[in-house]
Amino acid sequence: MKIETALISVFDKTGIVEFAKELQNLGIDIISTGGTYNFLVQNGIKAKKVEEITGFPEILNGRVKTLHPKILAGILADRSNPEHIEQLKKLNIKPIDLVVVNLYPFAQTISKSGITIEDAIEQIDIGGVTLLRASAKNYKYVAGIVNPRRYEQIISELKSNNCELSERTRLSLAIEIFQHTSNYDATIANFFSSQYTEDILPEIFYLNLNKVKNLRYGENPHQRSALYGDFFNYFEQLHGKELSYNNILDISSATEIVLEFEKPACAIVKHTNPCGVGIDEKSTLEAFKKAFATDTVSPFGGIIAFNRPIDLKTAIAIDEIFTEVIIAPDFPSDVLSFLMRKKNRRLIRYKNIDLKKSDLEFKKIIGGVLVQEVDNIDLEPLNLRVVTKRKPTVDEMEAMIFAWKVVKHVKSNAIVYAKKDRTLGIGAGQMSRVDASKVALMKAKEMGHDLRGSVVASDAFFPFPDGLIEAIKAGATAVIQPGGSIRDEEVIKTADEYNIAMVFTGIRHFKH
Amino acid sequence: MKIETALISVFDKTGIVEFAKELQNLGIDIISTGGTYNFLVQNGIKAKKVEEITGFPEILNGRVKTLHPKILAGILADRSNPEHIEQLKKLNIKPIDLVVVNLYPFAQTISKSGITIEDAIEQIDIGGVTLLRASAKNYKYVAGIVNPRRYEQIISELKSNNCELSERTRLSLAIEIFQHTSNYDATIANFFSSQYTEDILPEIFYLNLNKVKNLRYGENPHQRSALYGDFFNYFEQLHGKELSYNNILDISSATEIVLEFEKPACAIVKHTNPCGVGIDEKSTLEAFKKAFATDTVSPFGGIIAFNRPIDLKTAIAIDEIFTEVIIAPDFPSDVLSFLMRKKNRRLIRYKNIDLKKSDLEFKKIIGGVLVQEVDNIDLEPLNLRVVTKRKPTVDEMEAMIFAWKVVKHVKSNAIVYAKKDRTLGIGAGQMSRVDASKVALMKAKEMGHDLRGSVVASDAFFPFPDGLIEAIKAGATAVIQPGGSIRDEEVIKTADEYNIAMVFTGIRHFKH
Repeated sequence: MKIETALISVFDKTGIVEFAKELQNLGIDIISTGGTYNFLVQNGIKAKKVEEITGFPEILNGRVKTLHPKILAGILADRSNPEHIEQLKKLNIKPIDLVVVNLYPFAQTISKSGITIEDAIEQIDIGGVTLLRASAKNYKYVAGIVNPRRYEQIISELKSNNCELSERTRLSLAIEIFQHTSNYDATIANFFSSQYTEDILPEIFYLNLNKVKNLRYGENPHQRSALYGDFFNYFEQLHGKELSYNNILDISSATEIVLEFEKPACAIVKHTNPCGVGIDEKSTLEAFKKAFATDTVSPFGGIIAFNRPIDLKTAIAIDEIFTEVIIAPDFPSDVLSFLMRKKNRRLIRYKNIDLKKSDLEFKKIIGGVLVQEVDNIDLEPLNLRVVTKRKPTVDEMEAMIFAWKVVKHVKSNAIVYAKKDRTLGIGAGQMSRVDASKVALMKAKEMGHDLRGSVVASDAFFPFPDGLIEAIKAGATAVIQPGGSIRDEEVIKTADEYNIAMVFTGIRHFKH
Repeated sequence: MKIETALISVFDKTGIVEFAKELQNLGIDIISTGGTYNFLVQNGIKAKKVEEITGFPEILNGRVKTLHPKILAGILADRSNPEHIEQLKKLNIKPIDLVVVNLYPFAQTISKSGITIEDAIEQIDIGGVTLLRASAKNYKYVAGIVNPRRYEQIISELKSNNCELSERTRLSLAIEIFQHTSNYDATIANFFSSQYTEDILPEIFYLNLNKVKNLRYGENPHQRSALYGDFFNYFEQLHGKELSYNNILDISSATEIVLEFEKPACAIVKHTNPCGVGIDEKSTLEAFKKAFATDTVSPFGGIIAFNRPIDLKTAIAIDEIFTEVIIAPDFPSDVLSFLMRKKNRRLIRYKNIDLKKSDLEFKKIIGGVLVQEVDNIDLEPLNLRVVTKRKPTVDEMEAMIFAWKVVKHVKSNAIVYAKKDRTLGIGAGQMSRVDASKVALMKAKEMGHDLRGSVVASDAFFPFPDGLIEAIKAGATAVIQPGGSIRDEEVIKTADEYNIAMVFTGIRHFKH
């Protein structure tokens, strides 16, 4: 399958002159359209106008130029089918062996501010998509190139292979084309949807994500796995072993936690739950120490995240424990060189993350998918309702808001004991609230934390006073919880009996 | 924008005759292609052949029939642009206002066995996609229908609206088209990828699911949410209040657990974790009693699943505790009437579930999605490796296999104490294995369970002997765990010192 004729019609003109020149040197005839034709000819390439082939003018401001049977039959003819070849001859249609097309930049256009729907519509490519899809369908005989970064490789293969491309190359080009058109139309569908409805839960839920890479394995070694999307637009790996499935999951969880806080914060995560969280007025070292003090056993092999670049002192402190991943918005160069001494430890810089934007998350279930808005609601301190006789002190209030931000990220049922700058006991993932309370207490006691004067946060209401009484006995003086139980009065009465301050958030934070 | 001319070219002919008749009755002219034309005419519809418009024959076995400027300009002309209208007139092109097209069934074709790549390629629609995309691009003036389920609504709107469709309707049709073409091309890209590489994780991960319904809210009341897919093909709601997001999630989890077992089994689930699991030789009542005995506090407001139809005695026993959902493969009529006396309690019948088929699951993370094979590996008792001097007894082996099936469904880190037909203590969702062990013990002790002669299952290896020693002290005589720690020898030595039997599965079951 020697390539004799190429059709070139590109919006992105990167490298096209050089590429076309090489084709010309190889003796390949070039057909071209409107703007591309002019550009090529101005740059000394010989080309034939598509209208010369079709005998039909370019009309509707270019909306219709290549959509003609003389072009499409030239691309789509099955070269092994004598009938097809016969029909081409009869109609005087010349086969087209190479299609070089890229599309109007729809995604770029809609990302500009002040764009009208009419501007967007004008950027929906019809002809280009058809040419590309036709070439990809007929990849057994035709090569289609949508990606300018392939030009060099294609030229090199043509040169070394007597003007031919292997079937494997053509298939890989075809895959690239269908991936491209699929994403192109998904972008348009999304844009049109956003014009159609305020319901953020669309009638059709669809995802269309490119593979970033295969992972070594999934949650467990017998599960194959891959990462899709734009993860590395948000997380840059500066050093260390390849990220695993569980690393990536925990990096996402840990980063979400530290981004809750304005002050320098540190979160240590294992199995998507925080082992400890600390904040400080200015020191990442202090934030780390407080987080680590919560539970000095679990962080072994964990993930540590910061919301500030870390300094060398912090790095030296972290270095004493075995850590799989360290995450921060930046690493000064001295810190980086220090931490890079451990070959395997992964160092991740995060950037551009905006968790407050509205977004959907989803969970696979048997037979379907549950889709919901992400839980990105902010606690408005003004909306907190003090329900007890005693009002919280300023310190208690600060501690409760801190604990509330943490409990939101602990798997349900969740209970967190805290002071205003550190967690003291985290009860995660229990089937009853009273067990979550017990686990939090058990862990705080094991670590020798004094819970007197601490606060306690509960991700959902206390259904009975029992969990609350345990917390009070342990020394907690203030409680933050959603409220809303039919036994709220009883729970409030208990709090009042012990002179505890309690606030209701009106917000629940189940997380499964 | 009165609709005067429609182009119809459909592979799926469902409802097309009725639809076309209605169009005809409304005075709309019909243009059609090859097979569709013959089908319509045979069924008494008047239509014009597309070749009459284009003056160009259908060639290449139908690969090129509609791809002609006279058709595409008819669809794509901007009716508000006098130049466009002028060009149509000059070239004697009649506007096309309605495009009714559905595509060659690529996905269906490739799902058949014995399909060749040539068969598949033949089913890649080029013309149809172009017509649909052109109509959708120009939705301000043209309506395109890809989905036969829309015919009725469209006819009804045309009738009540003087042969016009609202812009909103046209936009909704356009969205459906771009979603459809996006997924169509993703399917092709993935099929081509499967020809190019053995990888089961496709280059593009895509989902395309219809909304089943909006849910009252998501995991929490401030999160909007909806269910997508075919959930109700697998779960039928026989009675009770509308299912919530958390109900659906737990129904899926609970059903997965009971489907692990051949014998009659019962699982009680809260927050996606089992509170207790029981099996019995024949009685669902006994299975329930054993599951419930594990933890009699947490099941309040929980989800109870069975893998057998339940009898009245079982129903009466369940009735004593407050349960949100009861799931079984069937409910005999006496049981159903008894359970329906509680108005709100949801009764769910499951069917057609095959968890063993290979499937992909996915998790949203910041900036992307993690995709992996589902964890559906079966434990092969023959592959179990006894690593201790003492071999397990038959009862211990049975109990370990039971415990292993349960621990797989407990969030990590997970530890399960069990006898051969019941769980005794479940330690879920902890950040360290030793804490999971402590939680399991704490719960077993609270419920007064005698752990002497019990077995313990761990979802991942014991990194140190500490967790194991605690289990032995509590009375466990056999341990099942993946093995694979660098300290395995130390752990085995400890087991041998206490004359414990230990087996390694070689399989890990992290679940997050």
